[in-house]
Amino acid sequence: MAYTYDYPRPAVTVDCVVFGLDPTDCLQVLLIQRWLDPFAGQWALPGGFVRHQEGLVQAAHRELREETGIADLFLEQLQAYGQPQRDPRGHTVTVAFYALVNLWNYQVRAATDAKQARWWPMDRLPALAFDHDVIVQDAIATLRTTIRHRPIGFELLPAKFTLTQLQRLYETVLARPFDKRNFRKKLLKLDILVALDEKETNVAHRAAQLYRFDQAKYLERQQTEFNFDL
Amino acid sequence: MAYTYDYPRPAVTVDCVVFGLDPTDCLQVLLIQRWLDPFAGQWALPGGFVRHQEGLVQAAHRELREETGIADLFLEQLQAYGQPQRDPRGHTVTVAFYALVNLWNYQVRAATDAKQARWWPMDRLPALAFDHDVIVQDAIATLRTTIRHRPIGFELLPAKFTLTQLQRLYETVLARPFDKRNFRKKLLKLDILVALDEKETNVAHRAAQLYRFDQAKYLERQQTEFNFDL
Repeated sequence: MAYTYDYPRPAVTVDCVVFGLDPTDCLQVLLIQRWLDPFAGQWALPGGFVRHQEGLVQAAHRELREETGIADLFLEQLQAYGQPQRDPRGHTVTVAFYALVNLWNYQVRAATDAKQARWWPMDRLPALAFDHDVIVQDAIATLRTTIRHRPIGFELLPAKFTLTQLQRLYETVLARPFDKRNFRKKLLKLDILVALDEKETNVAHRAAQLYRFDQAKYLERQQTEFNFDL
Repeated sequence: MAYTYDYPRPAVTVDCVVFGLDPTDCLQVLLIQRWLDPFAGQWALPGGFVRHQEGLVQAAHRELREETGIADLFLEQLQAYGQPQRDPRGHTVTVAFYALVNLWNYQVRAATDAKQARWWPMDRLPALAFDHDVIVQDAIATLRTTIRHRPIGFELLPAKFTLTQLQRLYETVLARPFDKRNFRKKLLKLDILVALDEKETNVAHRAAQLYRFDQAKYLERQQTEFNFDL
């Protein structure tokens, strides 16, 4: 007979840290306000219980859709959290995921057990339920490490963009300013940008050169790690 | 009343990928041979069910100790695996951990539900139970990425070592040779080594210079990422 385990099992949940880029402000995080206890009325990461025979990513997508209306984003696993006291309902292991999206592309609406769903600026987050503040801090640290080894921007910027827009994107995620000349030199060295024969239109200032990503080289750069030492 | 989840819960397990360095051979992985079904007689990663009110790292250490006799190593979380068909006993989520140790420091002995426990060379692994082959491949990929951004060797080499020993260590983990001059130049640039006023003794060849790690700088380098572009 197969060995099975007779003790009570921990519950298994998933939680999602969705970072939204708003070029006019700092990085945002998608939070929901809880209807029910524990932590009724408090803000938390979208997430919930993994169903019977449901995969982890599948559960994360379902919960995001149910609680915030958001679908079709690319979730990366962050890690599992299993400290036995982290949930007052009892021993619960949660698997956390994260994603980075252009928040203008996603219409957020609350549903199921979420009273409200909205973007919160990273630097003005409310107190979060459970250990979700720790999970958000781990996710931002991982995101910031990741973008030093893989290019970002492809899904976040318009098809044609200026180097200033790209710099703002990096500045928003890393929450610090960069020297313009240095940033440009290093980015162009990555060899993932194509200068277009076009300039910005409808701008008050001097129209800047437009660029697009070289998709093939961009994808290649996603595979071969580099150190974008800004 | 607090919302709870009434469906059957997945089981939760932990699995450990312990890499052992043997300077005379390739990288090794610690495996156990299963006594019981499923996969009775097959080789697998040490691991097992998380107990009631037990933390994940705590469970991983307990299982390692019980099944292989190994204690006191530093486990890093790899990720969770939750594909519903991955365990024939039913829906099981496993959280995988990994570690890199000097295998000469660890006496391995089988216990509890392990029939045997032993080190296997990475390039000659047997077929593994469950999805453990995938977990091992993910762990080696993560280990190889990690050592490009953090120095290794402190716990793996003797207190005084030669640059050749350090090079062999990197070659063993990354499974490829390096150019001696290039490797030395890049390593010395990391500024974590202290040249000693001593040479190797009892060697047939010309005695090489001995080095030690500068612990303060080594720890600093663990914090501030770098790109060891070998």
